[in-house]
Amino acid sequence: MITGSILIGAAEQQSAELFSAVDPATGAQIEPEFASAGPAEVDAACALAAAAFPSFSTTAPEERARFLEAIADKIVAIGDALIERAMKETGLPRPRLEGERGRTTGQLRLFATLLREGSWLDATIDPAMPDRAPLPRADLRRANVGLGPVAVFGASNFPLAFSVAGGDTCSALAAGCPVVVKGHPAHPGTGELVARAIREAVAESGLHEGVFSYLPGPTIALGQALVADPRIKAVGFTGSRGGGLALLATASSRAEPIPVYAEMSSINPVVLMPAALEARGAALAPAFVGSLTMGAGQFCTNPGLLIGIESEALDTFAKAAGEALTASKPITMLSPGIHASFEKGVEALEANDAVDTLARGCVGEGVNQARGALFSTDAASFLADQALGHEVFGSSSLLIRCQDMDELKRVIVSLEGQLTATLMMDEADHAAAAELVPLLAAKAGRVLANGWPTGVDVGYAMVHGGPFPATSDVRTTSVGTLAIARYLRPVCYQDIPDALLPAALRQDNPWSLPRRIDGTLKLAD
Amino acid sequence: MITGSILIGAAEQQSAELFSAVDPATGAQIEPEFASAGPAEVDAACALAAAAFPSFSTTAPEERARFLEAIADKIVAIGDALIERAMKETGLPRPRLEGERGRTTGQLRLFATLLREGSWLDATIDPAMPDRAPLPRADLRRANVGLGPVAVFGASNFPLAFSVAGGDTCSALAAGCPVVVKGHPAHPGTGELVARAIREAVAESGLHEGVFSYLPGPTIALGQALVADPRIKAVGFTGSRGGGLALLATASSRAEPIPVYAEMSSINPVVLMPAALEARGAALAPAFVGSLTMGAGQFCTNPGLLIGIESEALDTFAKAAGEALTASKPITMLSPGIHASFEKGVEALEANDAVDTLARGCVGEGVNQARGALFSTDAASFLADQALGHEVFGSSSLLIRCQDMDELKRVIVSLEGQLTATLMMDEADHAAAAELVPLLAAKAGRVLANGWPTGVDVGYAMVHGGPFPATSDVRTTSVGTLAIARYLRPVCYQDIPDALLPAALRQDNPWSLPRRIDGTLKLAD
Repeated sequence: MITGSILIGAAEQQSAELFSAVDPATGAQIEPEFASAGPAEVDAACALAAAAFPSFSTTAPEERARFLEAIADKIVAIGDALIERAMKETGLPRPRLEGERGRTTGQLRLFATLLREGSWLDATIDPAMPDRAPLPRADLRRANVGLGPVAVFGASNFPLAFSVAGGDTCSALAAGCPVVVKGHPAHPGTGELVARAIREAVAESGLHEGVFSYLPGPTIALGQALVADPRIKAVGFTGSRGGGLALLATASSRAEPIPVYAEMSSINPVVLMPAALEARGAALAPAFVGSLTMGAGQFCTNPGLLIGIESEALDTFAKAAGEALTASKPITMLSPGIHASFEKGVEALEANDAVDTLARGCVGEGVNQARGALFSTDAASFLADQALGHEVFGSSSLLIRCQDMDELKRVIVSLEGQLTATLMMDEADHAAAAELVPLLAAKAGRVLANGWPTGVDVGYAMVHGGPFPATSDVRTTSVGTLAIARYLRPVCYQDIPDALLPAALRQDNPWSLPRRIDGTLKLAD
Repeated sequence: MITGSILIGAAEQQSAELFSAVDPATGAQIEPEFASAGPAEVDAACALAAAAFPSFSTTAPEERARFLEAIADKIVAIGDALIERAMKETGLPRPRLEGERGRTTGQLRLFATLLREGSWLDATIDPAMPDRAPLPRADLRRANVGLGPVAVFGASNFPLAFSVAGGDTCSALAAGCPVVVKGHPAHPGTGELVARAIREAVAESGLHEGVFSYLPGPTIALGQALVADPRIKAVGFTGSRGGGLALLATASSRAEPIPVYAEMSSINPVVLMPAALEARGAALAPAFVGSLTMGAGQFCTNPGLLIGIESEALDTFAKAAGEALTASKPITMLSPGIHASFEKGVEALEANDAVDTLARGCVGEGVNQARGALFSTDAASFLADQALGHEVFGSSSLLIRCQDMDELKRVIVSLEGQLTATLMMDEADHAAAAELVPLLAAKAGRVLANGWPTGVDVGYAMVHGGPFPATSDVRTTSVGTLAIARYLRPVCYQDIPDALLPAALRQDNPWSLPRRIDGTLKLAD
């Protein structure tokens, strides 16, 4: 079932360049070898995607909804082979991957529901007013349409939910955009299994083969060629800050600027408010360490920064957190490269004179084992050294001790953009928290109280996004239904005869859409 | 009332560097001299704008609506002095400027209505599901908030509707974003009058003075400093392709990428369908020439390209259009610079061996007079020379003669992105037009039938935008209510206590917003 092929539309291709996946738990190569896609395959996939766009972008919402559901069904149908391959390629445990598969299929089904409801089309009609003075008004009708072919970069840390059939692919397909996936080289077999599932769904749904192509490969040149291709009209990426910035640079050297949605780095500050610390400082600690070490901390929303005001209660928390972390078991990281980066980041903090090491997790046996790390520094040192605010991807966190609430606010204001910001607070903290919520909302796409930021719900209200460098485009989200908006543009039709209008705008509203008529929103019957 | 000052918040400043407006009808300088803003003034204005953002962005929609209405009232209250100054600085006639004032105040009032209706906040609530399996759901609430301070560049061709209090400023203020305007140097007196009106509205509305600043100046360095300032979070620009691309380059060299909404260039193709030509070719000609020469053709939506299939009817149209154009009176252009660019563009077409000059308008007396120009070429020549598709800003248009419908389609597919695309068609054309509408919608933000593209309605359904190079961001519009979306970002609140939530998301819905609850849109009571 896994052949190592490049999948371009309905075709399969080999390549002279090959690469292999590595089992991060052993460091051993995994069979088979995979063809490495290059510029020729990018060209072929983009040509097919552009050819598929006119028909795919005008499919009815019901048709696209069924297509997304078919993808979900095909992924489920792969069965345990998918879970086992993903376990081998990522080192992630079975329950996590089974949960991630559920999330992946769940989000495909959620977007099917979204498509059928139809608000995403933003259908808007300003009826003609031939007698308006001083000038008559034409009949004006507006609806959204897909941007065109989208390049999606699979992420290392979510081999299912943010990879081949993950959030970016799902929202782009929902928007009517063909997708060309650059598969992540750390889990090419997992990627191929899912790519084949999508391909089967394309064929069985009677869609143009160019709706989906899968380009595995380990080279930077592959990604650059894909982003530079003039037929690509938007990019979805989840990965490192360096990788995201490189894609942004490639995109900005194009003749035609395109949206690049890069979700890059976040340290997800957690503010430990005084009353909460006083009431339950020790109790907060194990939950924090659980969030920090879950999945070896390989989450975009991992709590990499704690901020509190000096107190006995803060000391109690720090001590308890240190003890919990010291007892934490080492966990295999996703890849040798990620493990090496983690080690380097932790070593830099350990070597920093302004930083104390509060605790490290147990030493692991074997390769690519993450040892959790908890550090501490004072606010003045943090404010003086921007590098302390950079992400260390993995289970590493830094506690910042502030003198008072004013200094705590200065720390918040000094932060770069984040995906999340959290307040641990009790009722007695509410007055102070009321001032912090707007400061945190200015820094992050999601503000939480009394929860840990890991765990991102896929729903209508979710924002998984935020100011730079959390993402390259603060106007949107990569998780949840709003993600579809990333791949849409509005088109207005003026006095176009009814029969020539897109279905969304025809007078008889054949798709039963909610529509705004002359400024007033009308729900579908 | 016009002092030539730089207006930074509530303060006025002079400068050692001065510049003057020029009466384009005479070439003479107009009093008084104007202070030219530089980096120090950019810094001061941006600092104030950033200081104003927290309070301004959290004002209630009703408060912001009244503020926009106050700006409209203050602009009306300037009275005839505004019209007279604008006439002198732009050469535009009184009725046009009175109409433009009406559009400017009308759009401020429309956005006030939009603010009160509240859909723009996109308030969305996924209620907590503590018993959901496998994982409980937290209470998740999402609403939009302004991006931060916005830089607006006044346009030369709409001294009111696209300048200091124009569409960009209006939509940014509506979104809760403070605005720093870089005034267009061709109409600094008009700009100052409007800037003072906004400033009065800021003061009388009790808002932070930093909500609005006005930086006049003729230098490129001024615009670059403004776009490069890290406190600026988005840019609205209407102008030339060169100017827009320069701002994009400046923006992409920032550490933090920001949205740049540059509306740049469009030749607005008009397809003359066979049956329409046959039935009313001669009748179409004067209406075309009227649209082409109106305001000396200085509209983003000027019909700069006609496309038809070789026929006697096309010849009849071309002859009638030539005659109408030959009789057209010269019109004063907006500035010596714009006139010089127009002359250069027309001369290049006249000198092109593949292009025939069908007609020129009357020769004008005095300076900066636009003589209309109508050219013709065959489709093969147009397809072979991309430069023929570049905008000549002013009343210049090029007729492309195609051999057949296939060649006509190839011409459409070859076009760059456009603001508008038009079909002149009769019922007998509908079958062929059904294939062209999607091709045109892929190229333009607005597709029209049987109207001329000049004249942009400010409403709910309008799209004044389109693929590059019409604009730098195809996802949006610079005219109409959807323009507010350019300056908003979503923020999600998870389990935040009701009293600490933004009003839009509180349980009792104090602003009576339409909200999406658990996926279902609920209109306000």
